[in-house]
Amino acid sequence: MAIVLGPNRYGKAETRLVRVHRDGDTHGLVDFNVSVALSGDLTATHLTGDNSGVLPTDTMKNTVYAFAKEHPVGEPEAFALLLGRHFVTTQGQVSSAKVTIESVAWERLGPHSFQRRGDFTRTTVVTVTADGAQVVSGVSGLVLLNTTASEFHGFVKDRYTTLPEATDRILATAVDAKWRHLGDDADWGASFEGALDGLKSAFAGTYSYSLQQTLLAMGTRVLTTRPEIAEVRLALPNKHHYLVDLSAFDLTNENEVFIAGDRPYGLIEGTVTRDDVPAASAEWYL
Amino acid sequence: MAIVLGPNRYGKAETRLVRVHRDGDTHGLVDFNVSVALSGDLTATHLTGDNSGVLPTDTMKNTVYAFAKEHPVGEPEAFALLLGRHFVTTQGQVSSAKVTIESVAWERLGPHSFQRRGDFTRTTVVTVTADGAQVVSGVSGLVLLNTTASEFHGFVKDRYTTLPEATDRILATAVDAKWRHLGDDADWGASFEGALDGLKSAFAGTYSYSLQQTLLAMGTRVLTTRPEIAEVRLALPNKHHYLVDLSAFDLTNENEVFIAGDRPYGLIEGTVTRDDVPAASAEWYL
Amino acid sequence: MAIVLGPNRYGKAETRLVRVHRDGDTHGLVDFNVSVALSGDLTATHLTGDNSGVLPTDTMKNTVYAFAKEHPVGEPEAFALLLGRHFVTTQGQVSSAKVTIESVAWERLGPHSFQRRGDFTRTTVVTVTADGAQVVSGVSGLVLLNTTASEFHGFVKDRYTTLPEATDRILATAVDAKWRHLGDDADWGASFEGALDGLKSAFAGTYSYSLQQTLLAMGTRVLTTRPEIAEVRLALPNKHHYLVDLSAFDLTNENEVFIAGDRPYGLIEGTVTRDDVPAASAEWYL
Amino acid sequence: MAIVLGPNRYGKAETRLVRVHRDGDTHGLVDFNVSVALSGDLTATHLTGDNSGVLPTDTMKNTVYAFAKEHPVGEPEAFALLLGRHFVTTQGQVSSAKVTIESVAWERLGPHSFQRRGDFTRTTVVTVTADGAQVVSGVSGLVLLNTTASEFHGFVKDRYTTLPEATDRILATAVDAKWRHLGDDADWGASFEGALDGLKSAFAGTYSYSLQQTLLAMGTRVLTTRPEIAEVRLALPNKHHYLVDLSAFDLTNENEVFIAGDRPYGLIEGTVTRDDVPAASAEWYL
Repeated sequence: MAIVLGPNRYGKAETRLVRVHRDGDTHGLVDFNVSVALSGDLTATHLTGDNSGVLPTDTMKNTVYAFAKEHPVGEPEAFALLLGRHFVTTQGQVSSAKVTIESVAWERLGPHSFQRRGDFTRTTVVTVTADGAQVVSGVSGLVLLNTTASEFHGFVKDRYTTLPEATDRILATAVDAKWRHLGDDADWGASFEGALDGLKSAFAGTYSYSLQQTLLAMGTRVLTTRPEIAEVRLALPNKHHYLVDLSAFDLTNENEVFIAGDRPYGLIEGTVTRDDVPAASAEWYL
Repeated sequence: MAIVLGPNRYGKAETRLVRVHRDGDTHGLVDFNVSVALSGDLTATHLTGDNSGVLPTDTMKNTVYAFAKEHPVGEPEAFALLLGRHFVTTQGQVSSAKVTIESVAWERLGPHSFQRRGDFTRTTVVTVTADGAQVVSGVSGLVLLNTTASEFHGFVKDRYTTLPEATDRILATAVDAKWRHLGDDADWGASFEGALDGLKSAFAGTYSYSLQQTLLAMGTRVLTTRPEIAEVRLALPNKHHYLVDLSAFDLTNENEVFIAGDRPYGLIEGTVTRDDVPAASAEWYL
Repeated sequence: MAIVLGPNRYGKAETRLVRVHRDGDTHGLVDFNVSVALSGDLTATHLTGDNSGVLPTDTMKNTVYAFAKEHPVGEPEAFALLLGRHFVTTQGQVSSAKVTIESVAWERLGPHSFQRRGDFTRTTVVTVTADGAQVVSGVSGLVLLNTTASEFHGFVKDRYTTLPEATDRILATAVDAKWRHLGDDADWGASFEGALDGLKSAFAGTYSYSLQQTLLAMGTRVLTTRPEIAEVRLALPNKHHYLVDLSAFDLTNENEVFIAGDRPYGLIEGTVTRDDVPAASAEWYL
Repeated sequence: MAIVLGPNRYGKAETRLVRVHRDGDTHGLVDFNVSVALSGDLTATHLTGDNSGVLPTDTMKNTVYAFAKEHPVGEPEAFALLLGRHFVTTQGQVSSAKVTIESVAWERLGPHSFQRRGDFTRTTVVTVTADGAQVVSGVSGLVLLNTTASEFHGFVKDRYTTLPEATDRILATAVDAKWRHLGDDADWGASFEGALDGLKSAFAGTYSYSLQQTLLAMGTRVLTTRPEIAEVRLALPNKHHYLVDLSAFDLTNENEVFIAGDRPYGLIEGTVTRDDVPAASAEWYL
């Protein structure tokens, strides 16, 4: 028996980049949080601290900032592809580069003035190898709520079941969605807006008997409307809203007054996919 | 020398209330986080655990939910006044009730569907005593940024000063503002929107030589445009954006590529007030 | 009527300082988060952006780091006094300097190795003016729990009261305590350890009929045992532990199985003071 | 082409359980945060909202609390195994149950009094199927720091490299470690303490030329000393401490004064494994 090094990677996480585009008096603003992780032949540094194959993580940070000057900074998928390809092509010992970008939108208040939106974070995870690139886009922190059109009943009852059946309840979730693109060249902005619209409209428009049903409807809507997307992964916390029992105060509560719970919460996770697409080339859940 | 009980209060913090208004097919949604703190004659419970003058904090929570059924739930200032007056008038031992509400806005997606906005939290702190009520409204987490029209120079230099003078910099802040109303009866919704617009437009429209100058402009704008407001208190973190030195890569950085810093940050705090208004009747900074 | 500038201050918040003391092979470690706020004659920068009286907040940061080399860095109260006095004595326009330090303890693992403790944060808030210095010490995030020896009954019942009386409950809180020293010269380390012991032992040793009673016992213990302390301020969230109703499963729950609740929570705040001490010279609750 | 449901699971996350053991006057305290995720034949609820195969997540929560009464609650691995086996054996449609527990330690202050420790969270992830159980234990939030005995040089230099070589630096990390057990029956408490000691002593005792080298040493130490463990996975953020340049103040900084940085940070991830152990039966990184 021997003890050996298994899968590994390293990089610089959370490089905060703000890029101002100064095209005359009207300025543009891009706000990224960039993380880079490289893998390849890294045995020497693990075994002996021989760093001759280690590009410093500080250099990755510098590269993010230098690229922000040398290249256009627009859609996060495009910028992540640029960075990922750079590391794989210039560093022989690097076989795979994963670039993650969280992007926050700002609303324009004036020619050079902006207000940060906080309704969601746009995400991208690009993995580049010699064989090509896998592009995953996504959204996190998108909180959606239906005040009705949600039921939950007919479920399994065992010894520990006390939940009453519900024919009218609030359904609320904080969408964490990722979707894998078929290729590495798309109109990333339009694709994101289309996928986002699909998620929102399917959530709002689905009469729901379970959050699982809503999840499948959301993923299906994205795939139906966006041919460039192969697969959607959704993690949907069921943000419970508990109906308050007001009977002790001689009041009825006709689905009007709710406690917004913190913990515990349901967590529904699922993947929706086309059945004829190639498998993912890189793990894309992390 | 004796050891004595000084100022004290108690209450229930962070009661999470979601109120659905079901007016036909189109539903409304109110999302509040309510905290109550009462003070008065509370010596007995401190000295001996005699709770005969203690309304349980659990009852305060119940009252929030029951009132949400019994009364309209619209503007947070109005709901806070209702609650505060209830505790002072029904509990003889309570001389002062402070009700704090954080309110989050939701954007409509459909007749019963909503998306949570995350751009800021609307706040209110109402303090009710036998002598009347003090109403404070506010906003927190409103992040504003100008990409230019900000300078900072001519400052004191001592032995420890290394900061270069800046004639063009990013100015960014997360506005934490509170404003005290002259009375306890106003069009709270219009007042809030007006004050918010004042803060945003003054930030965007002020050519700034210091964040202090911008702060005074913001507070002044609110008071100039909203006669119902007596006083504005602003806490403005200076969210530093550091220009990246790209010279090592033979690149120039003409105010285009920035590091968004986390810590440390400047913190500018100030009050802007009318000179002919009565003093605050209750401490309103906490 | 005129609109005027009211109370104001500015400074650098959250300068993260780690100081290594290298005395031979055995190293020491100090971990501070330092915030500075100055007030004085700052009208010009607010009115016109004239910064001739503004020491940059960047300089305050530099001063923290330079002082960490030029002076001993041990007890946070002593370091805060050094910094506060520096700003007031060297900057004529500054009438008051408030220095806040959060300090985290590290446990020694070896001569140069440490593990961060996370059980609480030690705090200090020092305010220096021409008239002298006020020193406040404190602790936050100290979570204490008694599994028994806590009752709560005999309270007010109104229309909205449903809470059952409890003769045996869990009592838990996250202590946020601050205490004001009589002078500006003490054995700060011993004083802090003594006050901390007083808080913990009074919490553990008090048979409690209300959290208010425990609060007064905790503050009294500190003042009884620490003559150098004038006044104690405590904010004690009542971290509710709800007894789970297991009757639906034919199980009894004899105070064994609890839900640890997040929100809402009770919040008990109070001050315990000597009756013969001078009033605070500066606001010390913020 | 069809759109199909892919991998999915659902459950109740973050059920907060506090269990008091009342053995005479001396009480014991267990503090768990339990998450359950089930997978199996869940197609119907996704397709049509037919919940006939869905055990409610509310029931999972109830089960946690009822089991806390019906069974001993000691080591989190044992409690997670109990829960996981229950769901797989009693619910025919469930093929896999994953139970995650975060556990926080409390230090005894008295017979029924406790202080919460905050130095780390103990974690366990147990996955039960018909074929058996996989047990993963771990720790998160364990912050370790060496003030010396760390170098970093000899690394790759490309166009974007500016990092100077370091022959003496602070090395600090927040350990996030998980380790997979060979079996499902061990002295879980002793195993955890042993693995924790291994991680800490290897960190403290390794003269390091890269954090990767330290990572391998830490994983190897665990496997060398704990025969019941098959594999260790480590995610080690490099919590950078930047040496402050004090030269502008005519001061030298001989590795004494540091800025503790927040973002960006290095992130080193790696697995250390025995070469003769069976592969994991369930994904264990999430």
